[in-house]
Amino acid sequence: MAETPLYFPSAERERLELHLPTRKDADPSSPSCATLPFVTLTFATSLDSALSLGPGIRTALSGPESKAMTHYLRTRHDAICVGVGTAIADDPGLNSRLNAATHQPRPIIIDPRLRWDFTAQSKVMRLAREGRGLAPYIVTLEEEPPPHKKKILEDAGGKFITLTAGHGDEGRTDGTRFGWRVILSAVRQEGLHSIMIEGGGEVINSLLCEDADLVDSVIVTIAPIWLGQGGVTVSPPRANIDRPVARLSDTMWMPLGADVVLCGKVAR
Amino acid sequence: MAETPLYFPSAERERLELHLPTRKDADPSSPSCATLPFVTLTFATSLDSALSLGPGIRTALSGPESKAMTHYLRTRHDAICVGVGTAIADDPGLNSRLNAATHQPRPIIIDPRLRWDFTAQSKVMRLAREGRGLAPYIVTLEEEPPPHKKKILEDAGGKFITLTAGHGDEGRTDGTRFGWRVILSAVRQEGLHSIMIEGGGEVINSLLCEDADLVDSVIVTIAPIWLGQGGVTVSPPRANIDRPVARLSDTMWMPLGADVVLCGKVAR
Repeated sequence: MAETPLYFPSAERERLELHLPTRKDADPSSPSCATLPFVTLTFATSLDSALSLGPGIRTALSGPESKAMTHYLRTRHDAICVGVGTAIADDPGLNSRLNAATHQPRPIIIDPRLRWDFTAQSKVMRLAREGRGLAPYIVTLEEEPPPHKKKILEDAGGKFITLTAGHGDEGRTDGTRFGWRVILSAVRQEGLHSIMIEGGGEVINSLLCEDADLVDSVIVTIAPIWLGQGGVTVSPPRANIDRPVARLSDTMWMPLGADVVLCGKVAR
Repeated sequence: MAETPLYFPSAERERLELHLPTRKDADPSSPSCATLPFVTLTFATSLDSALSLGPGIRTALSGPESKAMTHYLRTRHDAICVGVGTAIADDPGLNSRLNAATHQPRPIIIDPRLRWDFTAQSKVMRLAREGRGLAPYIVTLEEEPPPHKKKILEDAGGKFITLTAGHGDEGRTDGTRFGWRVILSAVRQEGLHSIMIEGGGEVINSLLCEDADLVDSVIVTIAPIWLGQGGVTVSPPRANIDRPVARLSDTMWMPLGADVVLCGKVAR
């Protein structure tokens, strides 16, 4: 099935500019002493903060205009990150289908225990072989990934990145997960200066709850729909029972088709 | 404590106009054959669809601009409705503090079993005696409200409205609750041509889940904050596991201060 290229108008591009990594940061060859990439947290929810009707159910939420925006964002970041749950549930492409996209982001899949049973036919591998995207870097705790997986991944141009507790400056690992600083530090060491983190629910909630200070920019699309109880929701655990988890400052609301796009920074 | 009057600019008033009852509908003396009032569902949530940090915890969500909008809406409806939970938790005023407000809405409190232990000092009674608002009509299933409560209420200018299963056209009562059509029909019979339903969570969720077709207009304020797990949320039960509860059409997103206001109609 041929996929239509997406268009994102220049007026909206200009409005987003303040909330994106600078083009210098986004250039992998630019010298920089930063140890972490510019981090954009971005996702689309319903009015009741749901990402989908349920685990593994792909749910059309945002309209074509905000979809085009997401694909524009992908051209403006060196890397795009999802958790293993999303990789398994969605078989995502993780490329940009923007019309005349000249830059594709590097997919980063967080998969501590290598649960993602990809093949050469997984969408992201196919797109990489066809030159329409890049093959993923899979971040894991497993020291010896299965050789046949390694071959599929490396043939497409990707690789495994095995992290250990000592990998980051203030790393913390607990056997099944690692801290965001460890992951982001490893991403930066690959020469990737900016990353957009797209989902799914577990990834977003853990980032907002534990490591919101690592997020440079938040770009959330909200669609005018209530999915109702039972959905996968963005609802971070509260550290302090009587205090909100996070507030955004420097906000900009941009209506886009039937949806709205909220840009902001996590208030310190 | 003196409360500051609120201002709501005329540019934003004009943008809201399409989503409000017509002035003719809002005039209680206008002839109309409708058996139900114009219903506006309106509330403010966080990005994670929470109304408050927890049951009974008043939580500042929306900014001064959207607060002023709410008080403008109150001047544009004949009635304003909340559930007993909100009456108990918030001791709400249910009046309009808009600068130069010439119209005050009639508070309607849904209290099937008369759980609200109001006194002459409850805020809504005080405001009514001071001429800064109207006393409530309390909608109940109790046929004989306690005489001392009746006196307090009637002295302030309010009353009890006792409903029975036969009160509405397609009424349904189950002993602790009644259907929205029964309530709204009773409100209309009081000569009230428009009503804004403000909360709390139980009221909003039941209306969206069971009787969204009775809602003429939806006006939701969203604040750029995540309250986190444990809040009172708008998250209606889903009748059909793989179908969204409700979608809005004819949407308009209006940024207002740090918040956004979404207006729309429930898509049929």
